[in-house]
Amino acid sequence: MQKIAPLVLALAAVAVSAPATAQFQRPDDAIKYRKASFTVLATHFSRVGAMANGRMPFDAKVAAESAGIAEAMSKLPWEAFGPGTDKGDSRAEPEVWTEQAKFKAASEKMMTEVAKLNAAAKTGNLDQIKAAFGAAGASCKACHDDFRKN
Amino acid sequence: MQKIAPLVLALAAVAVSAPATAQFQRPDDAIKYRKASFTVLATHFSRVGAMANGRMPFDAKVAAESAGIAEAMSKLPWEAFGPGTDKGDSRAEPEVWTEQAKFKAASEKMMTEVAKLNAAAKTGNLDQIKAAFGAAGASCKACHDDFRKN
Repeated sequence: MQKIAPLVLALAAVAVSAPATAQFQRPDDAIKYRKASFTVLATHFSRVGAMANGRMPFDAKVAAESAGIAEAMSKLPWEAFGPGTDKGDSRAEPEVWTEQAKFKAASEKMMTEVAKLNAAAKTGNLDQIKAAFGAAGASCKACHDDFRKN
Repeated sequence: MQKIAPLVLALAAVAVSAPATAQFQRPDDAIKYRKASFTVLATHFSRVGAMANGRMPFDAKVAAESAGIAEAMSKLPWEAFGPGTDKGDSRAEPEVWTEQAKFKAASEKMMTEVAKLNAAAKTGNLDQIKAAFGAAGASCKACHDDFRKN
Protein backbone atom coordinates (compact mmCIF):
# COMPACT_ATOMS: atom_id res chain seq x y z
CA MET A 1 0.00 0.00 0.00
CA GLN A 2 2.83 2.45 0.67
CA LYS A 3 3.66 2.39 -3.00
CA ILE A 4 0.11 3.11 -4.00
CA ALA A 5 -0.65 6.05 -1.72
CA PRO A 6 1.47 8.61 -3.61
CA LEU A 7 -0.30 7.76 -6.85
CA VAL A 8 -3.70 8.14 -5.25
CA LEU A 9 -2.66 11.55 -4.00
CA ALA A 10 -1.18 12.48 -7.35
CA LEU A 11 -4.28 11.44 -9.27
CA ALA A 12 -6.55 13.16 -6.81
CA ALA A 13 -4.65 16.37 -7.40
CA VAL A 14 -5.00 15.95 -11.16
CA ALA A 15 -8.66 15.09 -11.15
CA VAL A 16 -9.97 18.59 -10.63
CA SER A 17 -13.46 17.63 -11.75
CA ALA A 18 -13.69 14.41 -9.81
CA PRO A 19 -12.78 14.62 -6.13
CA ALA A 20 -11.14 11.78 -4.30
CA THR A 21 -14.46 10.84 -2.73
CA ALA A 22 -15.61 9.68 -6.16
CA GLN A 23 -15.41 5.95 -6.50
CA PHE A 24 -15.90 3.07 -8.88
CA GLN A 25 -17.46 -0.13 -7.69
CA ARG A 26 -15.12 -2.37 -9.67
CA PRO A 27 -11.79 -1.84 -11.48
CA ASP A 28 -13.54 -2.76 -14.75
CA ASP A 29 -15.99 0.08 -14.19
CA ALA A 30 -13.09 2.50 -13.90
CA ILE A 31 -11.44 1.15 -17.06
CA LYS A 32 -14.70 1.36 -19.01
CA TYR A 33 -15.24 4.92 -17.77
CA ARG A 34 -11.78 6.21 -18.60
CA LYS A 35 -11.95 4.69 -22.08
CA ALA A 36 -15.40 6.19 -22.62
CA SER A 37 -14.27 9.64 -21.58
CA PHE A 38 -11.26 9.39 -23.91
CA THR A 39 -13.60 8.30 -26.74
CA VAL A 40 -15.85 11.33 -26.27
CA LEU A 41 -12.77 13.54 -25.97
CA ALA A 42 -11.19 12.10 -29.12
CA THR A 43 -14.39 12.43 -31.13
CA HIS A 44 -14.74 16.13 -30.44
CA PHE A 45 -11.02 16.83 -30.59
CA SER A 46 -10.92 15.16 -34.01
CA ARG A 47 -13.89 17.20 -35.14
CA VAL A 48 -12.01 20.40 -34.37
CA GLY A 49 -8.98 18.88 -36.05
CA ALA A 50 -10.94 18.10 -39.21
CA MET A 51 -11.76 21.78 -39.45
CA ALA A 52 -8.20 22.83 -38.61
CA ASN A 53 -6.91 20.54 -41.35
CA GLY A 54 -9.51 21.51 -43.94
CA ARG A 55 -11.15 18.08 -44.07
CA MET A 56 -14.41 19.59 -42.83
CA PRO A 57 -15.74 23.10 -43.60
CA PHE A 58 -14.95 25.48 -40.76
CA ASP A 59 -17.99 26.21 -38.61
CA ALA A 60 -17.03 28.40 -35.67
CA LYS A 61 -20.04 27.33 -33.61
CA VAL A 62 -19.35 23.63 -34.07
CA ALA A 63 -15.66 24.14 -33.35
CA ALA A 64 -16.40 26.05 -30.16
CA GLU A 65 -18.92 23.46 -28.96
CA SER A 66 -16.64 20.53 -29.70
CA ALA A 67 -13.63 22.21 -28.11
CA GLY A 68 -15.73 22.91 -25.02
CA ILE A 69 -16.74 19.28 -24.75
CA ALA A 70 -13.12 18.24 -25.30
CA GLU A 71 -11.94 20.47 -22.47
CA ALA A 72 -14.61 19.11 -20.12
CA MET A 73 -13.67 15.54 -21.06
CA SER A 74 -9.95 16.17 -20.63
CA LYS A 75 -10.45 16.43 -16.88
CA LEU A 76 -12.31 13.18 -16.38
CA PRO A 77 -10.20 10.08 -17.06
CA TRP A 78 -7.54 10.56 -14.42
CA GLU A 79 -9.46 9.50 -11.34
CA ALA A 80 -10.03 6.17 -13.08
CA PHE A 81 -6.36 5.14 -13.13
CA GLY A 82 -6.44 4.19 -9.47
CA PRO A 83 -5.01 1.12 -7.74
CA GLY A 84 -6.10 -2.19 -9.24
CA THR A 85 -7.06 -0.72 -12.60
CA ASP A 86 -3.83 -1.81 -14.32
CA LYS A 87 -5.29 -5.20 -15.24
CA GLY A 88 -8.21 -5.60 -17.60
CA ASP A 89 -9.44 -4.51 -21.03
CA SER A 90 -6.99 -1.63 -21.27
CA ARG A 91 -4.05 -0.47 -23.33
CA ALA A 92 -2.54 1.43 -20.42
CA GLU A 93 1.16 0.68 -20.02
CA PRO A 94 2.54 -0.33 -16.59
CA GLU A 95 4.41 2.99 -16.59
CA VAL A 96 1.14 4.74 -15.70
CA TRP A 97 1.60 3.25 -12.26
CA THR A 98 5.39 2.97 -12.08
CA GLU A 99 6.20 6.47 -13.37
CA GLN A 100 3.51 8.42 -11.62
CA ALA A 101 5.08 11.86 -11.69
CA LYS A 102 5.73 11.62 -15.41
CA PHE A 103 2.18 10.42 -16.10
CA LYS A 104 0.74 13.21 -13.98
CA ALA A 105 2.83 15.79 -15.85
CA ALA A 106 1.70 14.37 -19.19
CA SER A 107 -1.94 14.49 -18.16
CA GLU A 108 -1.58 18.07 -16.96
CA LYS A 109 0.12 19.06 -20.20
CA MET A 110 -2.78 17.63 -22.20
CA MET A 111 -5.38 19.40 -20.05
CA THR A 112 -3.51 22.68 -20.43
CA GLU A 113 -3.25 22.39 -24.21
CA VAL A 114 -6.87 21.33 -24.67
CA ALA A 115 -7.95 24.28 -22.53
CA LYS A 116 -5.91 26.53 -24.81
CA LEU A 117 -7.60 24.95 -27.82
CA ASN A 118 -10.99 25.70 -26.32
CA ALA A 119 -9.95 29.31 -25.68
CA ALA A 120 -8.76 29.57 -29.29
CA ALA A 121 -11.99 28.03 -30.57
CA LYS A 122 -14.01 30.54 -28.59
CA THR A 123 -12.31 33.36 -30.53
CA GLY A 124 -13.60 31.90 -33.79
CA ASN A 125 -10.21 32.55 -35.42
CA LEU A 126 -9.21 29.55 -37.53
CA ASP A 127 -5.50 30.36 -37.50
CA GLN A 128 -5.49 30.40 -33.71
CA ILE A 129 -7.40 27.13 -33.71
CA LYS A 130 -4.88 25.53 -36.08
CA ALA A 131 -1.95 26.52 -33.87
CA ALA A 132 -3.61 25.37 -30.68
CA PHE A 133 -4.75 22.12 -32.27
CA GLY A 134 -1.21 21.25 -33.27
CA ALA A 135 0.10 21.78 -29.76
CA ALA A 136 -2.76 19.87 -28.20
CA GLY A 137 -2.36 16.99 -30.63
CA ALA A 138 1.32 16.78 -29.73
CA SER A 139 0.39 16.50 -26.06
CA CYS A 140 -1.97 13.61 -26.84
CA LYS A 141 0.68 11.82 -28.88
CA ALA A 142 3.41 12.30 -26.27
CA CYS A 143 1.29 10.63 -23.59
CA HIS A 144 0.17 7.84 -25.92
CA ASP A 145 3.78 7.14 -26.91
CA ASP A 146 4.85 6.72 -23.31
CA PHE A 147 1.79 5.34 -21.57
CA ARG A 148 -0.43 3.52 -24.09
CA LYS A 149 0.17 0.27 -25.92
CA ASN A 150 -0.11 0.52 -29.70
CA MET B 1 -33.70 7.49 -48.43
CA GLN B 2 -37.17 9.00 -48.13
CA LYS B 3 -37.66 6.95 -44.97
CA ILE B 4 -34.41 8.16 -43.48
CA ALA B 5 -34.72 11.90 -44.05
CA PRO B 6 -37.34 12.51 -41.32
CA LEU B 7 -35.14 10.79 -38.76
CA VAL B 8 -32.15 12.87 -39.72
CA LEU B 9 -34.22 16.00 -39.25
CA ALA B 10 -35.64 14.71 -35.99
CA LEU B 11 -32.23 13.82 -34.60
CA ALA B 12 -30.74 17.11 -35.75
CA ALA B 13 -33.44 18.91 -33.79
CA VAL B 14 -32.64 16.86 -30.70
CA ALA B 15 -28.90 17.21 -30.88
CA VAL B 16 -28.68 20.71 -29.52
CA SER B 17 -24.98 20.38 -28.77
CA ALA B 18 -23.99 18.70 -32.00
CA PRO B 19 -25.20 20.38 -35.16
CA ALA B 20 -26.15 18.44 -38.26
CA THR B 21 -22.81 19.28 -39.84
CA ALA B 22 -21.13 17.03 -37.33
CA GLN B 23 -20.27 13.67 -38.82
CA PHE B 24 -18.83 10.27 -38.07
CA GLN B 25 -16.53 8.61 -40.55
CA ARG B 26 -18.03 5.16 -40.05
CA PRO B 27 -21.23 3.80 -38.45
CA ASP B 28 -19.08 1.94 -35.92
CA ASP B 29 -17.54 5.25 -34.86
CA ALA B 30 -21.01 6.61 -34.16
CA ILE B 31 -21.97 3.52 -32.17
CA LYS B 32 -18.77 3.65 -30.12
CA TYR B 33 -19.32 7.35 -29.46
CA ARG B 34 -22.93 7.09 -28.36
CA LYS B 35 -22.10 4.20 -26.04
CA ALA B 36 -19.18 6.14 -24.59
CA SER B 37 -21.29 9.22 -23.93
CA PHE B 38 -23.93 7.05 -22.23
CA THR B 39 -21.17 5.44 -20.11
CA VAL B 40 -19.89 8.80 -18.89
CA LEU B 41 -23.47 9.95 -18.32
CA ALA B 42 -24.36 6.80 -16.38
CA THR B 43 -21.24 6.99 -14.23
CA HIS B 44 -21.96 10.49 -13.03
CA PHE B 45 -25.72 9.99 -12.85
CA SER B 46 -25.12 6.93 -10.65
CA ARG B 47 -22.74 8.91 -8.47
CA VAL B 48 -25.48 11.42 -7.74
CA GLY B 49 -27.85 8.52 -7.22
CA ALA B 50 -25.54 6.89 -4.70
CA MET B 51 -25.75 10.06 -2.65
CA ALA B 52 -29.50 10.36 -3.15
CA ASN B 53 -29.93 6.79 -1.95
CA GLY B 54 -27.52 7.05 0.96
CA ARG B 55 -24.99 4.59 -0.43
CA MET B 56 -22.37 7.36 -0.54
CA PRO B 57 -22.01 10.27 1.90
CA PHE B 58 -23.61 13.40 0.49
CA ASP B 59 -21.04 15.87 -0.81
CA ALA B 60 -22.78 18.85 -2.38
CA LYS B 61 -19.75 19.78 -4.49
CA VAL B 62 -19.35 16.28 -5.92
CA ALA B 63 -23.08 16.04 -6.56
CA ALA B 64 -23.13 19.36 -8.39
CA GLU B 65 -20.09 18.46 -10.49
CA SER B 66 -21.40 15.03 -11.42
CA ALA B 67 -24.87 16.38 -12.22
CA GLY B 68 -23.29 19.02 -14.43
CA ILE B 69 -21.32 16.40 -16.34
CA ALA B 70 -24.47 14.27 -16.61
CA GLU B 71 -26.42 17.16 -18.12
CA ALA B 72 -23.66 17.89 -20.63
CA MET B 73 -23.51 14.21 -21.59
CA SER B 74 -27.29 13.92 -21.93
CA LYS B 75 -27.14 16.08 -25.05
CA LEU B 76 -24.49 14.11 -26.90
CA PRO B 77 -25.61 10.63 -27.96
CA TRP B 78 -28.51 11.56 -30.24
CA GLU B 79 -26.59 12.67 -33.30
CA ALA B 80 -25.00 9.22 -33.33
CA PHE B 81 -28.23 7.32 -34.05
CA GLY B 82 -28.15 8.32 -37.71
CA PRO B 83 -28.80 6.22 -40.80
CA GLY B 84 -26.75 3.03 -40.99
CA THR B 85 -25.99 2.90 -37.27
CA ASP B 86 -28.68 0.29 -36.54
CA LYS B 87 -26.28 -2.58 -37.25
CA GLY B 88 -23.20 -3.24 -35.17
CA ASP B 89 -22.08 -3.66 -31.55
CA SER B 90 -25.18 -2.05 -30.13
CA ARG B 91 -28.19 -2.87 -27.98
CA ALA B 92 -30.38 -0.30 -29.73
CA GLU B 93 -33.75 -1.75 -30.72
CA PRO B 94 -35.03 -1.31 -34.31
CA GLU B 95 -37.74 0.92 -32.83
CA VAL B 96 -35.14 3.71 -32.53
CA TRP B 97 -35.41 4.00 -36.29
CA THR B 98 -39.00 2.83 -36.86
CA GLU B 99 -40.62 4.89 -34.10
CA GLN B 100 -38.70 8.10 -34.50
CA ALA B 101 -41.15 10.51 -32.90
CA LYS B 102 -41.43 8.34 -29.81
CA PHE B 103 -37.66 7.97 -29.53
CA LYS B 104 -37.19 11.72 -29.92
CA ALA B 105 -39.77 12.38 -27.22
CA ALA B 106 -38.07 9.90 -24.89
CA SER B 107 -34.67 11.51 -25.47
CA GLU B 108 -36.07 14.96 -24.83
CA LYS B 109 -37.76 13.77 -21.64
CA MET B 110 -34.44 12.41 -20.37
CA MET B 111 -32.59 15.62 -21.21
CA THR B 112 -35.26 17.67 -19.44
CA GLU B 113 -35.17 15.54 -16.30
CA VAL B 114 -31.36 15.42 -16.14
CA ALA B 115 -31.28 19.22 -16.52
CA LYS B 116 -33.70 19.43 -13.59
CA LEU B 117 -31.42 17.13 -11.61
CA ASN B 118 -28.49 19.41 -12.30
CA ALA B 119 -30.54 22.43 -11.21
CA ALA B 120 -31.48 20.59 -8.03
CA ALA B 121 -27.87 19.58 -7.41
CA LYS B 122 -26.77 23.18 -7.78
CA THR B 123 -29.06 24.13 -4.85
CA GLY B 124 -27.18 21.71 -2.59
CA ASN B 125 -30.49 20.54 -1.12
CA LEU B 126 -30.46 16.76 -0.79
CA ASP B 127 -34.25 16.42 -0.70
CA GLN B 128 -34.54 18.26 -3.99
CA ILE B 129 -31.80 16.07 -5.43
CA LYS B 130 -33.61 12.92 -4.31
CA ALA B 131 -36.86 13.99 -5.96
CA ALA B 132 -35.16 15.01 -9.19
CA PHE B 133 -33.06 11.86 -9.27
CA GLY B 134 -36.16 9.68 -9.07
CA ALA B 135 -37.81 11.44 -11.98
CA ALA B 136 -34.64 11.38 -14.05
CA GLY B 137 -34.07 7.71 -13.34
CA ALA B 138 -37.60 6.95 -14.49
CA SER B 139 -36.90 8.74 -17.77
CA CYS B 140 -33.79 6.60 -18.30
CA LYS B 141 -35.70 3.41 -17.58
CA ALA B 142 -38.62 4.32 -19.83
CA CYS B 143 -36.33 4.79 -22.81
CA HIS B 144 -34.32 1.65 -22.04
CA ASP B 145 -37.54 -0.39 -21.76
CA ASP B 146 -38.70 0.69 -25.20
CA PHE B 147 -35.50 1.21 -27.15
CA ARG B 148 -32.70 -0.89 -25.68
CA LYS B 149 -32.26 -4.65 -25.70
CA ASN B 150 -31.79 -6.19 -22.26
